[in-house]
Amino acid sequence: MVFQIITLFPEMVGPVLSTSMMWKASEKGLAEFRVLNLRDFGLGPRHQVDDTPYGGGDGMLLMCEPIFAAVEYAKAQATNSKVILTTPKGSRWQQGMAAEFAERGQSGENYIILCGHYEGFDERILTLADHQVSIGDYVLTGGELPALVFVDSIVRLIPGVLGGEQSAQIESFSDGKTLEFPQYTRPAEFRGMKVPDVLLSGNHGEIAKWRKEH
Amino acid sequence: MVFQIITLFPEMVGPVLSTSMMWKASEKGLAEFRVLNLRDFGLGPRHQVDDTPYGGGDGMLLMCEPIFAAVEYAKAQATNSKVILTTPKGSRWQQGMAAEFAERGQSGENYIILCGHYEGFDERILTLADHQVSIGDYVLTGGELPALVFVDSIVRLIPGVLGGEQSAQIESFSDGKTLEFPQYTRPAEFRGMKVPDVLLSGNHGEIAKWRKEH
Repeated sequence: MVFQIITLFPEMVGPVLSTSMMWKASEKGLAEFRVLNLRDFGLGPRHQVDDTPYGGGDGMLLMCEPIFAAVEYAKAQATNSKVILTTPKGSRWQQGMAAEFAERGQSGENYIILCGHYEGFDERILTLADHQVSIGDYVLTGGELPALVFVDSIVRLIPGVLGGEQSAQIESFSDGKTLEFPQYTRPAEFRGMKVPDVLLSGNHGEIAKWRKEH
Repeated sequence: MVFQIITLFPEMVGPVLSTSMMWKASEKGLAEFRVLNLRDFGLGPRHQVDDTPYGGGDGMLLMCEPIFAAVEYAKAQATNSKVILTTPKGSRWQQGMAAEFAERGQSGENYIILCGHYEGFDERILTLADHQVSIGDYVLTGGELPALVFVDSIVRLIPGVLGGEQSAQIESFSDGKTLEFPQYTRPAEFRGMKVPDVLLSGNHGEIAKWRKEH
Protein backbone atom coordinates (compact mmCIF):
# COMPACT_ATOMS: atom_id res chain seq x y z
CA MET A 1 0.00 0.00 0.00
CA VAL A 2 1.74 3.13 -1.23
CA PHE A 3 0.85 6.54 0.21
CA GLN A 4 2.19 9.54 -1.70
CA ILE A 5 1.66 12.88 -0.03
CA ILE A 6 1.85 16.01 -2.14
CA THR A 7 2.65 19.01 0.04
CA LEU A 8 4.36 22.38 0.22
CA PHE A 9 5.76 21.38 3.63
CA PRO A 10 7.60 18.08 3.25
CA GLU A 11 9.68 18.90 6.34
CA MET A 12 6.47 18.83 8.40
CA VAL A 13 5.15 15.55 7.02
CA GLY A 14 8.31 13.44 6.74
CA PRO A 15 9.18 13.18 10.44
CA VAL A 16 5.68 12.02 11.39
CA LEU A 17 5.81 9.25 8.78
CA SER A 18 9.14 8.00 10.12
CA THR A 19 8.09 7.74 13.78
CA SER A 20 6.24 5.22 15.91
CA MET A 21 3.58 3.06 14.26
CA MET A 22 4.05 4.44 10.74
CA TRP A 23 7.77 3.77 10.94
CA LYS A 24 7.04 0.19 12.02
CA ALA A 25 4.59 -0.30 9.17
CA SER A 26 7.16 0.72 6.59
CA GLU A 27 9.95 -1.26 8.29
CA LYS A 28 7.74 -4.34 8.01
CA GLY A 29 7.03 -3.57 4.35
CA LEU A 30 3.29 -3.25 5.03
CA ALA A 31 3.04 0.35 3.86
CA GLU A 32 5.26 2.69 1.90
CA PHE A 33 5.32 6.45 2.29
CA ARG A 34 6.61 9.00 -0.17
CA VAL A 35 6.52 12.73 0.26
CA LEU A 36 6.42 14.85 -2.89
CA ASN A 37 7.34 18.51 -2.67
CA LEU A 38 4.77 20.49 -4.65
CA ARG A 39 7.41 23.18 -5.13
CA ASP A 40 9.35 20.77 -7.39
CA PHE A 41 6.43 20.99 -9.84
CA GLY A 42 6.17 24.79 -9.69
CA LEU A 43 6.22 27.01 -12.77
CA GLY A 44 9.17 28.91 -14.12
CA PRO A 45 12.52 29.66 -12.53
CA ARG A 46 10.86 30.62 -9.22
CA HIS A 47 8.81 27.41 -9.07
CA GLN A 48 5.58 29.32 -8.66
CA VAL A 49 2.74 27.28 -7.12
CA ASP A 50 0.13 29.92 -6.24
CA ASP A 51 -1.37 33.10 -7.61
CA THR A 52 -3.98 35.74 -6.74
CA PRO A 53 -7.68 34.92 -7.15
CA TYR A 54 -9.67 36.08 -10.17
CA GLY A 55 -12.28 38.58 -9.13
CA GLY A 56 -10.14 39.85 -6.27
CA GLY A 57 -9.74 38.84 -2.67
CA ASP A 58 -7.09 38.19 -0.07
CA GLY A 59 -4.62 35.39 -0.17
CA MET A 60 -3.05 33.21 -2.78
CA LEU A 61 -4.63 30.15 -4.36
CA LEU A 62 -2.80 26.98 -5.32
CA MET A 63 -2.68 26.87 -9.12
CA CYS A 64 -3.82 24.01 -11.33
CA GLU A 65 -0.66 23.31 -13.30
CA PRO A 66 1.78 22.30 -10.55
CA ILE A 67 -0.84 20.16 -8.83
CA PHE A 68 -1.92 18.39 -12.01
CA ALA A 69 1.74 17.76 -12.82
CA ALA A 70 2.48 16.39 -9.34
CA VAL A 71 -0.55 14.08 -9.40
CA GLU A 72 0.38 12.78 -12.85
CA TYR A 73 3.92 12.12 -11.66
CA ALA A 74 2.61 10.30 -8.58
CA LYS A 75 0.19 8.20 -10.64
CA ALA A 76 3.10 7.03 -12.78
CA GLN A 77 4.91 5.86 -9.61
CA ALA A 78 2.19 3.55 -8.27
CA THR A 79 -0.55 1.81 -10.23
CA ASN A 80 -4.19 2.01 -9.23
CA SER A 81 -3.72 5.20 -7.21
CA LYS A 82 -6.72 7.06 -5.90
CA VAL A 83 -6.44 10.78 -5.25
CA ILE A 84 -7.58 12.06 -1.86
CA LEU A 85 -8.01 15.78 -1.33
CA THR A 86 -8.09 17.04 2.25
CA THR A 87 -10.57 19.91 2.42
CA PRO A 88 -13.18 21.22 4.89
CA LYS A 89 -15.79 20.63 2.18
CA GLY A 90 -15.05 16.89 2.10
CA SER A 91 -16.88 13.93 3.64
CA ARG A 92 -16.37 13.66 7.36
CA TRP A 93 -13.68 11.08 8.03
CA GLN A 94 -14.80 8.25 10.32
CA GLN A 95 -13.47 4.96 11.60
CA GLY A 96 -15.63 2.94 9.21
CA MET A 97 -14.11 4.77 6.25
CA ALA A 98 -10.60 4.09 7.57
CA ALA A 99 -11.46 0.38 7.71
CA GLU A 100 -12.81 0.49 4.15
CA PHE A 101 -9.69 2.19 2.80
CA ALA A 102 -7.44 -0.23 4.71
CA GLU A 103 -9.25 -3.11 3.05
CA ARG A 104 -9.14 -1.60 -0.42
CA GLY A 105 -5.48 -0.84 0.08
CA GLN A 106 -4.85 -4.49 0.84
CA SER A 107 -6.55 -5.38 -2.44
CA GLY A 108 -4.03 -3.29 -4.34
CA GLU A 109 -5.31 0.27 -4.16
CA ASN A 110 -2.71 3.00 -3.54
CA TYR A 111 -3.26 6.56 -2.35
CA ILE A 112 -2.12 10.00 -3.42
CA ILE A 113 -2.98 12.62 -0.83
CA LEU A 114 -3.17 16.20 -1.90
CA CYS A 115 -2.76 18.65 0.96
CA GLY A 116 -4.94 21.72 0.68
CA HIS A 117 -3.82 25.12 1.88
CA TYR A 118 -5.70 27.56 4.11
CA GLU A 119 -5.86 30.30 1.53
CA GLY A 120 -7.52 27.89 -0.85
CA PHE A 121 -6.95 26.35 -4.25
CA ASP A 122 -8.24 26.72 -7.78
CA GLU A 123 -11.64 25.04 -7.95
CA ARG A 124 -10.60 23.01 -11.02
CA ILE A 125 -8.29 20.98 -8.82
CA LEU A 126 -11.39 19.24 -7.47
CA THR A 127 -11.68 17.37 -10.78
CA LEU A 128 -8.56 15.42 -9.82
CA ALA A 129 -9.97 14.07 -6.57
CA ASP A 130 -11.48 10.61 -6.25
CA HIS A 131 -12.36 11.42 -2.64
CA GLN A 132 -12.62 14.66 -0.70
CA VAL A 133 -12.07 14.21 3.00
CA SER A 134 -12.51 16.46 6.04
CA ILE A 135 -11.30 15.38 9.49
CA GLY A 136 -13.62 17.71 11.43
CA ASP A 137 -15.47 21.01 11.77
CA TYR A 138 -12.49 23.22 12.36
CA VAL A 139 -10.12 25.23 10.20
CA LEU A 140 -6.45 24.32 9.94
CA THR A 141 -3.62 26.10 8.21
CA GLY A 142 -3.00 23.36 5.71
CA GLY A 143 -4.01 19.87 4.69
CA GLU A 144 -0.86 18.32 6.18
CA LEU A 145 -2.32 17.35 9.55
CA PRO A 146 -5.50 15.99 7.92
CA ALA A 147 -3.37 14.00 5.46
CA LEU A 148 -1.43 12.49 8.36
CA VAL A 149 -4.64 11.69 10.25
CA PHE A 150 -5.94 9.95 7.12
CA VAL A 151 -2.77 7.86 6.74
CA ASP A 152 -2.38 7.02 10.45
CA SER A 153 -5.98 5.86 10.86
CA ILE A 154 -5.70 3.55 7.82
CA VAL A 155 -2.20 2.15 8.31
CA ARG A 156 -2.77 1.01 11.88
CA LEU A 157 -5.61 -1.21 10.63
CA ILE A 158 -3.36 -3.16 8.25
CA PRO A 159 -2.99 -6.63 9.80
CA GLY A 160 0.46 -7.07 11.31
CA VAL A 161 1.16 -3.39 11.93
CA LEU A 162 0.08 -3.26 15.58
CA GLY A 163 1.71 -5.61 18.07
CA GLY A 164 -1.19 -7.33 19.81
CA GLU A 165 -3.85 -8.62 17.44
CA GLN A 166 -6.43 -7.47 19.95
CA SER A 167 -5.21 -3.88 20.16
CA ALA A 168 -6.87 -2.58 17.02
CA GLN A 169 -10.11 -4.20 18.07
CA ILE A 170 -10.86 -3.36 21.70
CA GLU A 171 -10.34 0.30 21.08
CA SER A 172 -12.83 3.06 21.07
CA PHE A 173 -14.88 3.42 17.88
CA SER A 174 -13.81 0.11 16.35
CA ASP A 175 -17.41 -0.95 16.36
CA GLY A 176 -18.66 2.53 15.61
CA LYS A 177 -19.81 3.42 19.11
CA THR A 178 -18.27 1.71 22.14
CA LEU A 179 -15.58 3.54 24.03
CA GLU A 180 -12.97 1.53 25.89
CA PHE A 181 -13.41 0.58 29.57
CA PRO A 182 -11.29 2.30 32.25
CA GLN A 183 -7.85 0.78 32.68
CA TYR A 184 -5.28 0.94 35.46
CA THR A 185 -1.67 0.00 35.93
CA ARG A 186 0.79 0.15 38.84
CA PRO A 187 0.86 1.49 41.50
CA ALA A 188 -2.35 0.13 43.06
CA GLU A 189 -2.64 3.36 45.00
CA PHE A 190 -1.39 6.72 43.78
CA ARG A 191 -1.92 9.88 45.85
CA GLY A 192 -4.93 8.32 47.54
CA MET A 193 -6.49 7.14 44.27
CA LYS A 194 -6.98 3.37 44.32
CA VAL A 195 -7.38 0.87 41.54
CA PRO A 196 -10.84 -0.81 41.82
CA ASP A 197 -10.51 -3.95 43.99
CA VAL A 198 -12.07 -6.23 41.41
CA LEU A 199 -9.17 -5.62 38.99
CA LEU A 200 -6.70 -6.72 41.67
CA SER A 201 -8.79 -9.81 42.57
CA GLY A 202 -7.52 -12.17 39.88
CA ASN A 203 -11.14 -13.30 39.37
CA HIS A 204 -11.39 -13.28 35.58
CA GLY A 205 -15.16 -13.70 35.49
CA GLU A 206 -15.69 -10.70 37.76
CA ILE A 207 -13.13 -8.63 35.84
CA ALA A 208 -14.83 -9.31 32.50
CA LYS A 209 -18.20 -8.41 34.04
CA TRP A 210 -16.86 -5.15 35.50
CA ARG A 211 -15.30 -4.17 32.18
CA LYS A 212 -18.51 -4.81 30.33
CA GLU A 213 -20.38 -2.59 32.76
CA HIS A 214 -17.99 0.36 32.29
CA MET B 1 0.26 32.11 24.92
CA VAL B 2 2.44 29.16 25.86
CA PHE B 3 1.69 25.68 24.55
CA GLN B 4 3.56 22.83 26.22
CA ILE B 5 3.11 19.43 24.63
CA ILE B 6 3.93 16.34 26.66
CA THR B 7 4.67 13.42 24.38
CA LEU B 8 6.67 10.23 23.93
CA PHE B 9 7.45 11.34 20.36
CA PRO B 10 9.00 14.81 20.47
CA GLU B 11 10.67 14.16 17.11
CA MET B 12 7.22 13.92 15.56
CA VAL B 13 5.81 17.07 17.13
CA GLY B 14 8.76 19.46 16.97
CA PRO B 15 9.07 19.79 13.17
CA VAL B 16 5.36 20.61 12.76
CA LEU B 17 5.61 23.38 15.33
CA SER B 18 8.57 24.94 13.54
CA THR B 19 6.99 25.08 10.06
CA SER B 20 4.61 27.39 8.24
CA MET B 21 2.03 29.31 10.26
CA MET B 22 3.13 28.00 13.67
CA TRP B 23 6.70 29.01 12.97
CA LYS B 24 5.49 32.50 12.02
CA ALA B 25 3.44 32.77 15.20
CA SER B 26 6.44 32.02 17.37
CA GLU B 27 8.75 34.25 15.30
CA LYS B 28 6.31 37.10 15.92
CA GLY B 29 6.21 36.29 19.63
CA LEU B 30 2.47 35.62 19.51
CA ALA B 31 2.73 32.02 20.67
CA GLU B 32 5.41 29.92 22.28
CA PHE B 33 5.77 26.17 21.84
CA ARG B 34 7.64 23.78 24.10
CA VAL B 35 7.85 20.06 23.64
CA LEU B 36 8.41 17.95 26.75
CA ASN B 37 9.64 14.39 26.37
CA LEU B 38 7.59 12.20 28.70
CA ARG B 39 10.51 9.78 28.77
CA ASP B 40 12.51 12.37 30.74
CA PHE B 41 10.03 11.89 33.57
CA GLY B 42 10.12 8.09 33.45
CA LEU B 43 10.82 5.91 36.48
CA GLY B 44 14.10 4.30 37.39
CA PRO B 45 17.23 3.88 35.32
CA ARG B 46 15.22 2.72 32.29
CA HIS B 47 12.88 5.73 32.45
CA GLN B 48 9.81 3.52 32.51
CA VAL B 49 6.61 5.26 31.40
CA ASP B 50 4.17 2.39 30.89
CA ASP B 51 3.18 -0.91 32.44
CA THR B 52 0.74 -3.80 31.95
CA PRO B 53 -2.93 -3.34 32.90
CA TYR B 54 -4.34 -4.65 36.17
CA GLY B 55 -6.83 -7.42 35.50
CA GLY B 56 -4.99 -8.50 32.35
CA GLY B 57 -5.23 -7.49 28.73
CA ASP B 58 -3.04 -6.59 25.79
CA GLY B 59 -0.86 -3.57 25.54
CA MET B 60 0.84 -1.23 27.93
CA LEU B 61 -0.77 1.68 29.72
CA LEU B 62 0.86 5.02 30.41
CA MET B 63 1.51 5.17 34.16
CA CYS B 64 0.43 7.93 36.54
CA GLU B 65 3.77 8.93 38.04
CA PRO B 66 5.66 10.15 34.96
CA ILE B 67 2.64 12.03 33.66
CA PHE B 68 1.85 13.70 36.97
CA ALA B 69 5.53 14.69 37.24
CA ALA B 70 5.61 16.10 33.69
CA VAL B 71 2.41 18.10 34.21
CA GLU B 72 3.72 19.50 37.49
CA TYR B 73 6.95 20.50 35.83
CA ALA B 74 5.05 22.18 32.97
CA LYS B 75 2.76 24.05 35.37
CA ALA B 76 5.81 25.49 37.08
CA GLN B 77 7.03 26.82 33.70
CA ALA B 78 3.93 28.84 32.78
CA THR B 79 1.36 30.33 35.11
CA ASN B 80 -2.36 29.77 34.65
CA SER B 81 -1.87 26.63 32.57
CA LYS B 82 -4.85 24.46 31.70
CA VAL B 83 -4.30 20.79 30.97
CA ILE B 84 -5.80 19.39 27.78
CA LEU B 85 -5.93 15.64 27.29
CA THR B 86 -6.40 14.36 23.75
CA THR B 87 -8.59 11.26 23.92
CA PRO B 88 -11.39 9.69 21.85
CA LYS B 89 -13.63 10.05 24.91
CA GLY B 90 -13.25 13.84 24.90
CA SER B 91 -15.55 16.59 23.66
CA ARG B 92 -15.60 16.87 19.90
CA TRP B 93 -13.31 19.71 18.87
CA GLN B 94 -15.03 22.41 16.78
CA GLN B 95 -14.20 25.81 15.37
CA GLY B 96 -16.19 27.62 18.05
CA MET B 97 -14.09 25.97 20.75
CA ALA B 98 -10.89 26.96 18.94
CA ALA B 99 -12.11 30.57 18.95
CA GLU B 100 -12.91 30.36 22.66
CA PHE B 101 -9.48 28.98 23.54
CA ALA B 102 -7.77 31.59 21.34
CA GLU B 103 -9.60 34.28 23.27
CA ARG B 104 -8.85 32.82 26.68
CA GLY B 105 -5.24 32.42 25.64
CA GLN B 106 -5.08 36.10 24.84
CA SER B 107 -6.38 36.84 28.32
CA GLY B 108 -3.40 35.02 29.83
CA GLU B 109 -4.34 31.36 29.81
CA ASN B 110 -1.63 28.88 28.79
CA TYR B 111 -2.00 25.27 27.69
CA ILE B 112 -0.39 21.97 28.54
CA ILE B 113 -1.34 19.26 26.09
CA LEU B 114 -1.04 15.68 27.17
CA CYS B 115 -0.79 13.27 24.24
CA GLY B 116 -2.63 10.00 24.81
CA HIS B 117 -1.37 6.72 23.46
CA TYR B 118 -3.30 4.12 21.51
CA GLU B 119 -2.79 1.38 24.06
CA GLY B 120 -4.33 3.64 26.68
CA PHE B 121 -3.44 5.23 29.97
CA ASP B 122 -4.17 4.77 33.63
CA GLU B 123 -7.66 6.12 34.33
CA ARG B 124 -6.40 8.26 37.22
CA ILE B 125 -4.63 10.49 34.71
CA LEU B 126 -8.05 11.92 33.85
CA THR B 127 -8.03 13.76 37.18
CA LEU B 128 -5.27 15.99 35.78
CA ALA B 129 -7.26 17.18 32.77
CA ASP B 130 -9.13 20.48 32.70
CA HIS B 131 -10.44 19.58 29.24
CA GLN B 132 -10.67 16.31 27.33
CA VAL B 133 -10.70 16.79 23.60
CA SER B 134 -11.35 14.49 20.63
CA ILE B 135 -10.76 15.65 17.07
CA GLY B 136 -13.10 13.11 15.46
CA ASP B 137 -14.65 9.64 15.37
CA TYR B 138 -11.59 7.72 14.32
CA VAL B 139 -8.75 5.96 16.11
CA LEU B 140 -5.19 7.22 15.84
CA THR B 141 -1.98 5.73 17.15
CA GLY B 142 -1.28 8.53 19.54
CA GLY B 143 -2.46 11.90 20.72
CA GLU B 144 0.27 13.74 18.82
CA LEU B 145 -1.74 14.57 15.69
CA PRO B 146 -4.77 15.61 17.77
CA ALA B 147 -2.51 17.81 19.91
CA LEU B 148 -1.16 19.49 16.77
CA VAL B 149 -4.67 19.96 15.37
CA PHE B 150 -5.65 21.58 18.67
CA VAL B 151 -2.69 23.96 18.60
CA ASP B 152 -2.94 24.82 14.89
CA SER B 153 -6.63 25.62 15.00
CA ILE B 154 -6.14 27.97 17.98
CA VAL B 155 -2.90 29.69 17.01
CA ARG B 156 -4.10 30.75 13.56
CA LEU B 157 -6.92 32.70 15.23
CA ILE B 158 -4.57 34.87 17.28
CA PRO B 159 -4.74 38.34 15.71
CA GLY B 160 -1.61 39.11 13.70
CA VAL B 161 -0.64 35.50 12.98
CA LEU B 162 -2.21 35.25 9.53
CA GLY B 163 -1.19 37.72 6.86
CA GLY B 164 -4.46 39.14 5.53
CA GLU B 165 -6.84 40.20 8.27
CA GLN B 166 -9.64 38.78 6.17
CA SER B 167 -8.12 35.34 5.76
CA ALA B 168 -9.17 33.88 9.09
CA GLN B 169 -12.68 35.17 8.56
CA ILE B 170 -13.87 34.25 5.06
CA GLU B 171 -12.91 30.68 5.58
CA SER B 172 -15.08 27.67 5.93
CA PHE B 173 -16.63 27.17 9.39
CA SER B 174 -15.68 30.57 10.76
CA ASP B 175 -19.35 31.27 11.30
CA GLY B 176 -20.15 27.69 12.18
CA LYS B 177 -21.67 26.65 8.87
CA THR B 178 -20.77 28.49 5.67
CA LEU B 179 -18.22 26.92 3.37
CA GLU B 180 -16.10 29.18 1.20
CA PHE B 181 -17.15 30.05 -2.37
CA PRO B 182 -15.29 28.50 -5.34
CA GLN B 183 -12.09 30.34 -6.24
CA TYR B 184 -9.96 30.42 -9.38
CA THR B 185 -6.55 31.70 -10.35
CA ARG B 186 -4.54 31.77 -13.58
CA PRO B 187 -4.72 30.44 -16.25
CA ALA B 188 -8.25 31.47 -17.32
CA GLU B 189 -8.49 28.22 -19.22
CA PHE B 190 -6.76 24.99 -18.21
CA ARG B 191 -7.27 21.80 -20.22
CA GLY B 192 -10.62 23.03 -21.45
CA MET B 193 -11.82 24.08 -17.99
CA LYS B 194 -12.68 27.77 -17.92
CA VAL B 195 -12.91 30.24 -15.08
CA PRO B 196 -16.51 31.58 -14.86
CA ASP B 197 -16.81 34.71 -17.00
CA VAL B 198 -18.18 36.85 -14.22
CA LEU B 199 -14.91 36.54 -12.26
CA LEU B 200 -12.98 37.88 -15.25
CA SER B 201 -15.45 40.72 -15.81
CA GLY B 202 -14.05 43.23 -13.34
CA ASN B 203 -17.63 44.01 -12.27
CA HIS B 204 -17.33 43.99 -8.49
CA GLY B 205 -21.07 44.02 -7.86
CA GLU B 206 -21.63 40.98 -10.06
CA ILE B 207 -18.65 39.18 -8.54
CA ALA B 208 -19.91 39.73 -5.00
CA LYS B 209 -23.37 38.50 -6.03
CA TRP B 210 -21.93 35.37 -7.70
CA ARG B 211 -19.84 34.56 -4.65
CA LYS B 212 -22.78 34.91 -2.33
CA GLU B 213 -24.76 32.50 -4.49
CA HIS B 214 -22.06 29.82 -4.40
